[in-house]
Amino acid sequence: MNERPAKRGVLLTLAYDGTDFHGYQRQDGLRTVQSEVERALEKVDPWASRLRACSRTDTGVHALAQKAAFTGTRDMPAFAYWKELERHLPRDVAVVDAEECALDYEPRFDAVEKTYHYRVRVGPSRDPLRDRTHFHLFRGMIRKGTRESTDVGVSLSLEAMREAASYLVGTHDFVAFRAAGDERKNTVRTIHELSIEREEGTTDALRIVVRGNAFMKQMVRIISGTLLEVGRERREPSWVKTLVEPGKDRRHAGPTAPPQGLVLVSVVLGRDRAEST
Amino acid sequence: MNERPAKRGVLLTLAYDGTDFHGYQRQDGLRTVQSEVERALEKVDPWASRLRACSRTDTGVHALAQKAAFTGTRDMPAFAYWKELERHLPRDVAVVDAEECALDYEPRFDAVEKTYHYRVRVGPSRDPLRDRTHFHLFRGMIRKGTRESTDVGVSLSLEAMREAASYLVGTHDFVAFRAAGDERKNTVRTIHELSIEREEGTTDALRIVVRGNAFMKQMVRIISGTLLEVGRERREPSWVKTLVEPGKDRRHAGPTAPPQGLVLVSVVLGRDRAEST
Repeated sequence: MNERPAKRGVLLTLAYDGTDFHGYQRQDGLRTVQSEVERALEKVDPWASRLRACSRTDTGVHALAQKAAFTGTRDMPAFAYWKELERHLPRDVAVVDAEECALDYEPRFDAVEKTYHYRVRVGPSRDPLRDRTHFHLFRGMIRKGTRESTDVGVSLSLEAMREAASYLVGTHDFVAFRAAGDERKNTVRTIHELSIEREEGTTDALRIVVRGNAFMKQMVRIISGTLLEVGRERREPSWVKTLVEPGKDRRHAGPTAPPQGLVLVSVVLGRDRAEST
Repeated sequence: MNERPAKRGVLLTLAYDGTDFHGYQRQDGLRTVQSEVERALEKVDPWASRLRACSRTDTGVHALAQKAAFTGTRDMPAFAYWKELERHLPRDVAVVDAEECALDYEPRFDAVEKTYHYRVRVGPSRDPLRDRTHFHLFRGMIRKGTRESTDVGVSLSLEAMREAASYLVGTHDFVAFRAAGDERKNTVRTIHELSIEREEGTTDALRIVVRGNAFMKQMVRIISGTLLEVGRERREPSWVKTLVEPGKDRRHAGPTAPPQGLVLVSVVLGRDRAEST
């Protein structure tokens, strides 16, 4: 209920370390990204609308560039909202950009493309500086892995993962790659890029880069868990080809990789931003 | 007070995210790395000695390879201590290696060489995924910096930092680079390497690599703060040359860079490890 007239649409870009959040979306009694940012916004503009975000990232998932719009009632530029919000946010969520947009702009319906990274580290021990942001595959879980050869190229077959990934690029029915219980009708999505890269400057970590038009709940984590089954040589690359064929469901794909490896890296928005409806 | 006979010397390698610790060393009522590891050790071997560590890292400073020895009373190999300790440690400190050593081994007096990294990021906004491990220089603090040119090479002069660093390599009196209040007599140290590198895979972060025989309290952070004064073009590289000349003290060097950028990366130990005295 706005008690003051809407003055300005503001589109925020948010970055967060998802470790200590129960996901992006507001939930009663739980610490979420949305509730922390809305709490800061209430101090800056008590009559502002709630946030309208682009992606509902899960518990433990990170973001470098989540997009969230709101309608403000103060007569000040987006940049000033950015600077004032920053004074009230905890250290694990930050506003990293702010721009003007239409008063009722809905980034969720205007996202044209999203990019996620999924990070994996192999090795014989924990690493407190990377365990917040990487899925750690213990030595014992990696076939052929030995303590001396935890190099990614040795323990996980990049070549096999790349072949498997190639079968998912393009427009397919990804019904086997959505969380069980998700009931939406349209399960066809387009993946523009699915690449597997070593992390620069490391010998023990890799990154799965996924770029596509839209993603279902847990889809990137199921894709990552499936590719890792191939990388660990538990499955052949050609198995992945069958997963986008008719008659498949969630039980046919690999496990859901854990959330801490996942980062929402960027979102491309369409042309609606400037248009008021 | 050991109530059981000493059976085994164990040398641990510890990795930790220093963010939520009041430094390495035990302090009454505060959460420190030593107290957390000793608490775990008490569950595994209640009669084990306290830890004897190699470096007293400050509040907020991280480690990939701190060395800490203890004397155990259980008849089991170092590897078994490692695995049992891991079951009782919090997620921000890990045992990453364990080996046998002399019963009374003191790694602090046997360290031959240590390597530290100091990480710096430049840019116009916070980054929750890197602010735990990098010193963030805001755009406004960087001369010549603009939002579009936050590339390290533009905003911080790597060339000037490298020239300044060259004056500190070798054996010098580092009395100007020790924390005020430190009263030890011998302030001569040898720096084998002091290099400035871009962080791989980034355009906005650099790493100062320091390798030397021994370091005084806050010495690496004062070196880093001093080099950053030069990188930001507040001082000439030749200024750093004067800081190891006679008659200098802490007031002449640059500011102490904040702790979160610092990581103890490795320690080379000498030959005492296997010898019982």
